[in-house]
Amino acid sequence: MKKAGVAILGLGVVGGGTYQILTEKKEYFKKTQGVDLTVECVLEKNIERAKQLGIDDARIAKSIEEVVANPNVDIVVEVIGGTGVAKTFVTTALKSGKTVVTSNKELFAKHWPELEAEAKKMNAGLFFEASCVGGVPIIRTLQEGMQANKILSIKGIINGTTNYILTKMANEGSSYEEALKEAQRLGYAEFNPTADVEGFDATYKLSILSSLAFNKKICIENVYREGITGINKEDIAYGKEMGYTLKLLGIGKDTENGVEVRVHPTFVKNDDPLASVNDSFNAVHLVGDAVGEIMLYGRGAGALPTGSAIVSDVIFAAKHDRFFYACFENNEKGNKETKFVGDFTSKYYIRLSVKDTAGVLSKISGVFAKNNVSILEVKQVAVEEGKAQIIIVTHMCNESLVKKTLDKLESLPEVFAVQGTIRMED
Amino acid sequence: MKKAGVAILGLGVVGGGTYQILTEKKEYFKKTQGVDLTVECVLEKNIERAKQLGIDDARIAKSIEEVVANPNVDIVVEVIGGTGVAKTFVTTALKSGKTVVTSNKELFAKHWPELEAEAKKMNAGLFFEASCVGGVPIIRTLQEGMQANKILSIKGIINGTTNYILTKMANEGSSYEEALKEAQRLGYAEFNPTADVEGFDATYKLSILSSLAFNKKICIENVYREGITGINKEDIAYGKEMGYTLKLLGIGKDTENGVEVRVHPTFVKNDDPLASVNDSFNAVHLVGDAVGEIMLYGRGAGALPTGSAIVSDVIFAAKHDRFFYACFENNEKGNKETKFVGDFTSKYYIRLSVKDTAGVLSKISGVFAKNNVSILEVKQVAVEEGKAQIIIVTHMCNESLVKKTLDKLESLPEVFAVQGTIRMED
Repeated sequence: MKKAGVAILGLGVVGGGTYQILTEKKEYFKKTQGVDLTVECVLEKNIERAKQLGIDDARIAKSIEEVVANPNVDIVVEVIGGTGVAKTFVTTALKSGKTVVTSNKELFAKHWPELEAEAKKMNAGLFFEASCVGGVPIIRTLQEGMQANKILSIKGIINGTTNYILTKMANEGSSYEEALKEAQRLGYAEFNPTADVEGFDATYKLSILSSLAFNKKICIENVYREGITGINKEDIAYGKEMGYTLKLLGIGKDTENGVEVRVHPTFVKNDDPLASVNDSFNAVHLVGDAVGEIMLYGRGAGALPTGSAIVSDVIFAAKHDRFFYACFENNEKGNKETKFVGDFTSKYYIRLSVKDTAGVLSKISGVFAKNNVSILEVKQVAVEEGKAQIIIVTHMCNESLVKKTLDKLESLPEVFAVQGTIRMED
Repeated sequence: MKKAGVAILGLGVVGGGTYQILTEKKEYFKKTQGVDLTVECVLEKNIERAKQLGIDDARIAKSIEEVVANPNVDIVVEVIGGTGVAKTFVTTALKSGKTVVTSNKELFAKHWPELEAEAKKMNAGLFFEASCVGGVPIIRTLQEGMQANKILSIKGIINGTTNYILTKMANEGSSYEEALKEAQRLGYAEFNPTADVEGFDATYKLSILSSLAFNKKICIENVYREGITGINKEDIAYGKEMGYTLKLLGIGKDTENGVEVRVHPTFVKNDDPLASVNDSFNAVHLVGDAVGEIMLYGRGAGALPTGSAIVSDVIFAAKHDRFFYACFENNEKGNKETKFVGDFTSKYYIRLSVKDTAGVLSKISGVFAKNNVSILEVKQVAVEEGKAQIIIVTHMCNESLVKKTLDKLESLPEVFAVQGTIRMED
């Protein structure tokens, strides 16, 4: 039977879940996978936490050097997070020829090429299933299930915190602030929620996933990013009436004109499979040129779901000795030949606060026409004496034309404000 | 670069799709996968078909012996179907040490242990992703993505023909016969639709998937099977009113009392992720003890989706030289120690045609009470002079108790007939 020794760096939520799965299921994995996995040591400053988990002193390493010097350690699991010590530790492990399994999306999104180069030198494995969408095996699917396809698009709800907040706003009519507070109370959002609500977390994941999907290095700098902090509950409610659900989507498209990668709040139709992905659930929708549409759905975070992804990588690494590195040019700055679409096309939802007088709609729709933005749907609602809301859904058009239109609209005396501008995906 | 020669046995719909992907994407696979795949030969009686695909005489083999004698052939793709020549050809290929990739669910469900034994002798690979749920990488997910989990349940819409028919009945109020005719016209159903509509196809797939999920050999004889030919549009309509959608589900559960495996029409709640899987789409919902719920969704059939699964296996086989056989005892008759649940528990939807007189409901509900079947919901509708329909939804109860209850009900003078009995899943 194949044996493998594992070291776990960091015993936070995910580290604890990983330790639990590896130890409680040792016999199960021998029986079902034919591999004998042993947690040889852990590296964790909080000794009490290690002891709570039942780890004796002998297995608590004092330094990364001690970990990599241990000849029984084959696979190093990094679940510390961030790009500080985590990066040093991962690099040290790879330099020693240890295979690394990580859940660290930020590290991977920012330093993948560098880590891959270190791994290649020593022929070490480098696994990162847990870095994207928790327990959903999206990376294994891209690498080992969709190889026959040129992936045309990837669309995902890849951040559970924002999906929880948007679901709550939609179902209960909460404001963004109320929903955020509730998410924080339940532990779905951090005390400082910026990484989630401003879309940084989703950007890291989209950078990794779209690189794998399109076989081209997509750097985080290439990803357009917009979070959910500016979302009003009114827009969610108006969208709902019109048959749309608001989601923070990571969108990647590999088109003839170039690659488009963007993270932003997006209206999807209510019958879109992504519309019914609620609360902290995640989902990724892919279109491949052979397979057509597929979608994967599940928990994007949590001790055991993310632990599931890490242990899956550990078992994969233990069983398949050879590791295959990404076959695309993986440079820090991406490949110069990759073209990106700057001025992408989309449908738009636009909400305006206007004077409720005769001829306003005609004047406004005239501005759209003049800027070549074609209107699909209009809705006008009187809200108070002398004021109305106009909601306009456009046909597909270039972002630059919409910006021009909005600039012009804001200069009209009849328009009090542009209150919401949200992209839409079919 | 790793090279692999491929032989394709059978150039039907899936064989043609596979040939197309392998030839059109040869350069793409060299670049993105680092493997050079060549279709060395094909075996197909219909020479015209082969020529239409652009295959020259030199690559049209005359016999399976010629295929396996070709030293350039490493991987044999079998897409003939059935258990006749397909079995002979696959066995011959394995005996020659060739790795086999097959889409043949019937062959695999019926003869997996025998084929695995042959493969083991020669250390040959045996891949079958395409046998279940077409382009959806459910087998790779079970084998290479969910290893950290004990899978507790699997529920799937794993037959596209029946899902198309049931969707049409639900959306358009068609009868079973009308919907079947339309499915046949569109090529979704065969001229002889028995394998699909009677649930045999789903049974083959559930046998394979639940064996992998539960790490126990589940034979087709262990699977309870009931097709959709007895489904009335009235029950679909009543269910819809009550918040349920009818699907033909393959259900597997690994419980403390034993394994439960069954294929039958099932009402799921409208907000269940499986409820919105429509037309010929397929989906598989898994619950793992670590990962929680996950679901995979996509095309279950078709030249390119199934070709996508086959080529994924071909690439996997070419890249990962070593093959890992199932780690469970894989005997023709399963493992004697596996306990199966005979009398499973479920919620039930029951529709009765009754005399519309005073006291009927009381008498009927009395029969349920006497048999310890607890009622969750009742609905009574007067349909014509002197006749009413009573629809009863039960709480979870044993199938045997429901049968007793129905026998007793049928003997009552007030009950004209039990018109529909459909299991329900939460």
